[in-house]
Amino acid sequence: MITVLSGGVGAARLLRALSDVIAPSQITAVVNVGDDMVLHGLSICPDLDTITYTLAGLNNDELGWGLTGETWRVMNELEALGGEAWFRLGDRDLATHLYRTQRLADGATKTAVALELALRHGVAVRLLPVTNDTVTTEFVTAEGRLSFQEYFVRRHHDVVVRSIEFVGAERASATPEVLDALREASRIVIAPSNPLISIDPILQIPGVREIVRTRRDDVVAVSPLIGGEALKGPAARLLGELGFEVSAVGVVDVYQGLVGTWIIDEADAELAERIRHRGARVEITTTVMAEADNARRLATVVLS
Amino acid sequence: MITVLSGGVGAARLLRALSDVIAPSQITAVVNVGDDMVLHGLSICPDLDTITYTLAGLNNDELGWGLTGETWRVMNELEALGGEAWFRLGDRDLATHLYRTQRLADGATKTAVALELALRHGVAVRLLPVTNDTVTTEFVTAEGRLSFQEYFVRRHHDVVVRSIEFVGAERASATPEVLDALREASRIVIAPSNPLISIDPILQIPGVREIVRTRRDDVVAVSPLIGGEALKGPAARLLGELGFEVSAVGVVDVYQGLVGTWIIDEADAELAERIRHRGARVEITTTVMAEADNARRLATVVLS
Repeated sequence: MITVLSGGVGAARLLRALSDVIAPSQITAVVNVGDDMVLHGLSICPDLDTITYTLAGLNNDELGWGLTGETWRVMNELEALGGEAWFRLGDRDLATHLYRTQRLADGATKTAVALELALRHGVAVRLLPVTNDTVTTEFVTAEGRLSFQEYFVRRHHDVVVRSIEFVGAERASATPEVLDALREASRIVIAPSNPLISIDPILQIPGVREIVRTRRDDVVAVSPLIGGEALKGPAARLLGELGFEVSAVGVVDVYQGLVGTWIIDEADAELAERIRHRGARVEITTTVMAEADNARRLATVVLS
Repeated sequence: MITVLSGGVGAARLLRALSDVIAPSQITAVVNVGDDMVLHGLSICPDLDTITYTLAGLNNDELGWGLTGETWRVMNELEALGGEAWFRLGDRDLATHLYRTQRLADGATKTAVALELALRHGVAVRLLPVTNDTVTTEFVTAEGRLSFQEYFVRRHHDVVVRSIEFVGAERASATPEVLDALREASRIVIAPSNPLISIDPILQIPGVREIVRTRRDDVVAVSPLIGGEALKGPAARLLGELGFEVSAVGVVDVYQGLVGTWIIDEADAELAERIRHRGARVEITTTVMAEADNARRLATVVLS
């Protein structure tokens, strides 16, 4: 049994690759909820949905987000009505949000809904939101406080960030399923997700960081930075803005004291010595998962 | 200036006919909100939307509800996910509900949203929900308490009703715009909507019935029953179940003391004497609005 701390796209790809190498039912993903939001009254969980869609083979590779074969009838009408349409919700995707919102209104937990949606999509990896409580990632920027999607989608993460806050995190509780999955896993994997806005909000939930720390020898992290750049998103920029080195070494510093083994890309081989100097083992392989062969090789290294 | 107490389909047709005879901007509709609900987290106002769509020429005549050219992508997906899909929300229609829900979350009133949506659809009739407060029609039936749409859509109004309650009505406030529209209209029209579940929840909002009563001489009502039957919906059945005569005379009794002039269908001419006996004037004409000519003739009688 392995447990993977997961953001969205990068984590989804690693989980898919891991599912090719071991039985999906052996894998638990503990998923970030900091990007979750209510928009148009609908409860939206972008990271959970990205993982579910990707593992179901329904991810839209052209867009890089959302569902394949998506249509935009509702959004186009909403735009014509003068509604807020900058956060694009496809028609198929909307069904997920309607389903979740109604189930939550009926009293179901976010955990229960995530498992139901995974089941409906035939996804055998166990997907667990880190908490059923509301935790909201907010960006304190030069231009004021922005919500996650205002920063990420509306502003295309092109604004200077001074600090990041996870509102509600200190009062939130990790679910019992999550705590068990962290305690009982033979290996804890930190996916190559954004360390500051995908993984950190998981670690900030009381109890999570402490368990990961005690299990350090069994913790394997895949660097989300290759040659000082992220494949997608603002990880590199945010590391620099928040005072970290813009490289895999900067990511190692974010996870200080938590990771036993680092997996870095061949392009970063010369950083290995500095990482070992910080007390971690280092494995060097291809960490780009665009090709299935490479992704499986990475998964094998993660599991070895 | 005339003010029309309005439910859904029947009122929408009368409003459309009136708009053919006088300037739409001279007409105010005071609209029932008792069927309003939150489903999948979305705020849905069926009567306001039916009127808006009909006056915009976007009503779906084939279905008898909803929008023309509608598609069902979201509902079909929701059904595939195992979600609650018995209340069918089309893709175009959903945009209305997303728009309203977000605007209400932003702090707009239901009144403001109704006027915005009317404006977007080029509807010049002034559409006013009777109240911005939450009023919820509930049915006490032989099989327990049912919400409006559980009774109306899910159970196809095929269950015995013992009583009808408008939860929240006594604490609700009619909007100032509604009270002014009732006080200042040269004529108040009661549309041929269901008296017990479309018009009564308007009259139950404190202040409304009292104003209508003082203006009785200027109140014109169109009977929703023709030959003891409603064109659509459970009006006849409900009148009987709640102890009223199942005819236009039963409707007169529901509106006791409120109506100066009754307009009844030619098929009901023999009821005229009994209605006059109850102290009202009676006009006899065709009240079926399926053909535009008849609808305009009815509108002319209403205005004469």
